[in-house]
Amino acid sequence: MTDPLASPPDRRPGGRTARVRAQVLDAVRAELAERGHEGLTMEGVATRAGVHRATVYRRWRDVGGLLVDVITAAGEIDWQPPDTGSLPGDLTALNEEIQQSLVVQPSFALALMAASFHSEQAARAQTRLWTDRYAQCEVLVERAVERGELPAPHPDARSLLVAATAPIYHQLVLLRAGPDPRLPRRAARAAVLAAAAGAFRAPRQDREESDREQSDREESA
Amino acid sequence: MTDPLASPPDRRPGGRTARVRAQVLDAVRAELAERGHEGLTMEGVATRAGVHRATVYRRWRDVGGLLVDVITAAGEIDWQPPDTGSLPGDLTALNEEIQQSLVVQPSFALALMAASFHSEQAARAQTRLWTDRYAQCEVLVERAVERGELPAPHPDARSLLVAATAPIYHQLVLLRAGPDPRLPRRAARAAVLAAAAGAFRAPRQDREESDREQSDREESA
Repeated sequence: MTDPLASPPDRRPGGRTARVRAQVLDAVRAELAERGHEGLTMEGVATRAGVHRATVYRRWRDVGGLLVDVITAAGEIDWQPPDTGSLPGDLTALNEEIQQSLVVQPSFALALMAASFHSEQAARAQTRLWTDRYAQCEVLVERAVERGELPAPHPDARSLLVAATAPIYHQLVLLRAGPDPRLPRRAARAAVLAAAAGAFRAPRQDREESDREQSDREESA
Repeated sequence: MTDPLASPPDRRPGGRTARVRAQVLDAVRAELAERGHEGLTMEGVATRAGVHRATVYRRWRDVGGLLVDVITAAGEIDWQPPDTGSLPGDLTALNEEIQQSLVVQPSFALALMAASFHSEQAARAQTRLWTDRYAQCEVLVERAVERGELPAPHPDARSLLVAATAPIYHQLVLLRAGPDPRLPRRAARAAVLAAAAGAFRAPRQDREESDREQSDREESA
């Protein structure tokens, strides 16, 4: 949902503490992208950052601490969801941003996903970041409802967003297909068509419909 | 697309070579599920399998060789896609199978995905397996077309299958949400609604439509 490769806001003028954090996290991002999380060491980060090892150990404790902080820093970026004027346009732009973050070489986003398979701390931090980003994106669905692009009853925003974005991750991260320049638009379009046809209803509506289908079946039986 | 936890067909009557392979691959699956790929060693597998270390080194060479063979063995299972009589039913059953393989503790499917982030060999073997499974599932879409469930022009089967299944992997593998018993049905239903509304067209049709939209925009401009 984000391009975590982007640096957090430059806090260097904020004093030595902020400056050291920026240097260390820049080094973590560079080491992760170059060597993957398996090659990430406290010593390597300290050397690359030009910061005393003792400082790195004191403030981040271990590699897990570094991973959590680099993910936290990605969440501090002033990221804004796209605003193109239409839901298909917004979701396509979002998917293009995701695709870009996954195909760039080396991909920091991919390195973080790999790390989160092996560090519970990193996995939790990444889940928090993703939860925040999906929550931020709910405004795309709200704006589409206001513009009358989606009929009532309105879809559950998060389910729609997951459906629109999941194929990008699936193709690139799990199936390891090459990037398909049409996929961002196609996946966005499919999710919007499904929403317009009544998919992604809020769980309560969904349950009511399921009950209705059930009683229809019983009546026709 | 598969439950790789299932053992390959029992070839033990096939002689010593087949028996040793079955023992070694059972040990790889058990070690992977218990310790993850980081804990997978030639020695650990040999000990668990009760097979001489030299044999394991000679036939599989290294941990990458063991991973590739265990993925190859998963592809040798006589797996059949579901056949429930309707496309939403088939896709729901498929998603339930996928969800089950990911939430079972310990999950061999998850361990393999983690491994494929760190072994190019394992990644390639997994991509081949997934490609085969999606190809096998195209029959679900063909049957739906024959039953008249999907209007012409017919969707690209693989795109539809990826859209139907991707949310399960996304929620469970990447977002690390807990399993949602309604998700298999909801994701299946969304993909079918999108397909019925004209999503997932073959790339050529999609391009023609995009050209048409473009010329509509130019005319109305």
